[in-house]
Amino acid sequence: MAIIQNIKIAVDAIVFGYENSQLFVLLVKQKFGDAKNSWCLPGGFVLNDESLTTAVTRELREETGVSVNYLEQLYTFGDNIERDPRFRVVSVAYFALVDPSKLTLKTITDTDAEKAKWFPIDQLPQLAYDHREIIDTAFSRLKNKLTYQPIGFDLLGTEFLFSELENLYTTLLEKNIDRRNFRKKILGFGIIDETDKIASVKSGRPAKLFKFNEKKYRELEQNGFHFEIKFN
Amino acid sequence: MAIIQNIKIAVDAIVFGYENSQLFVLLVKQKFGDAKNSWCLPGGFVLNDESLTTAVTRELREETGVSVNYLEQLYTFGDNIERDPRFRVVSVAYFALVDPSKLTLKTITDTDAEKAKWFPIDQLPQLAYDHREIIDTAFSRLKNKLTYQPIGFDLLGTEFLFSELENLYTTLLEKNIDRRNFRKKILGFGIIDETDKIASVKSGRPAKLFKFNEKKYRELEQNGFHFEIKFN
Repeated sequence: MAIIQNIKIAVDAIVFGYENSQLFVLLVKQKFGDAKNSWCLPGGFVLNDESLTTAVTRELREETGVSVNYLEQLYTFGDNIERDPRFRVVSVAYFALVDPSKLTLKTITDTDAEKAKWFPIDQLPQLAYDHREIIDTAFSRLKNKLTYQPIGFDLLGTEFLFSELENLYTTLLEKNIDRRNFRKKILGFGIIDETDKIASVKSGRPAKLFKFNEKKYRELEQNGFHFEIKFN
Repeated sequence: MAIIQNIKIAVDAIVFGYENSQLFVLLVKQKFGDAKNSWCLPGGFVLNDESLTTAVTRELREETGVSVNYLEQLYTFGDNIERDPRFRVVSVAYFALVDPSKLTLKTITDTDAEKAKWFPIDQLPQLAYDHREIIDTAFSRLKNKLTYQPIGFDLLGTEFLFSELENLYTTLLEKNIDRRNFRKKILGFGIIDETDKIASVKSGRPAKLFKFNEKKYRELEQNGFHFEIKFN
């Protein structure tokens, strides 16, 4: 090609965690450059010989210590040609859902990040670049997906109280639900199993712990089952 | 950054058209390079000072003569680092739905493309790069979206017979439908209007022409309406 293209490709990771009825986003503090000391999403430039998926997994691990099995491609941000003040960067954003209680944050010294930290989605700090917009896009996608795929279970612990699942939906979607109908509907799907364990609840009597049965879900899905939670 | 990134960014357009109960994809024949004489998606490299959306709209217009108002970002292909044999290229793919009867194909001389042509989705030629995979991804997205957004109307003419809408669904989703229920359901949404025009049908008696009422759809959507077509 005759022209010289002067655009860099980066990847960014939006990692959502859920704890104590709150949704968190994983951010890192920049160590160098124009954005020094500001918070932003974990991410960085793609190396010449690595796939986009490898790049985002690597950046996330290096800057935050978090290893995830699966990151879903969210969107590629490249319409604002000045989204990075240094030079033009197109960023392919990925998102993941995790259970923060299972993770220890740890930043490798030899990266652009000084430290990693969870922030509640409604108390985000000032963010560098267009990362606020990227988080907003990811949060919209998350809320939308919650209604048609059983991804909420990725945010909960392996075993959870039914009230925790209910809280997750009401908190994230900001909707009131008819609790009896919700319980009936979710249990009716046949994709969560009652365990024989009981947990005590802060207020109220002890309750059964449940587990998501992913194998069952896949089987049902093969046979045309659609997970769906509707709010009016 | 210390390392020199040696990756180019391209955009590709998957344009679907629908005519005579068949889905078509718009392809161009390459004029230069390794892929000379092979068919591929319209697309090309992003210029330094243009947004991704501008780039894909421009490439599509230059190589095929097709101007579209809206292209939706589909997916960014960059996991296969050898998807282009020349050098590493990450491609941001966009898709659009059009009514081919309204378009005239025309390739500007000064582009990589020799000519543009519609191909039926089930009779695609050998394609360059990973463009077959990109089309498959776009076709899956299209089929999925047809069930939860009224995008089928973008593929039909402004005025259409109910049987044409029905054909579009059965052909693209490869499902049989209960015609009476389908008609009842679609009309029940209140988003298509009966016109006072009658068209003759090849086999059978003349039938009413319908029109999609986008304004009405947007209003209903604001009030919580969800378009949904289910097949079992």
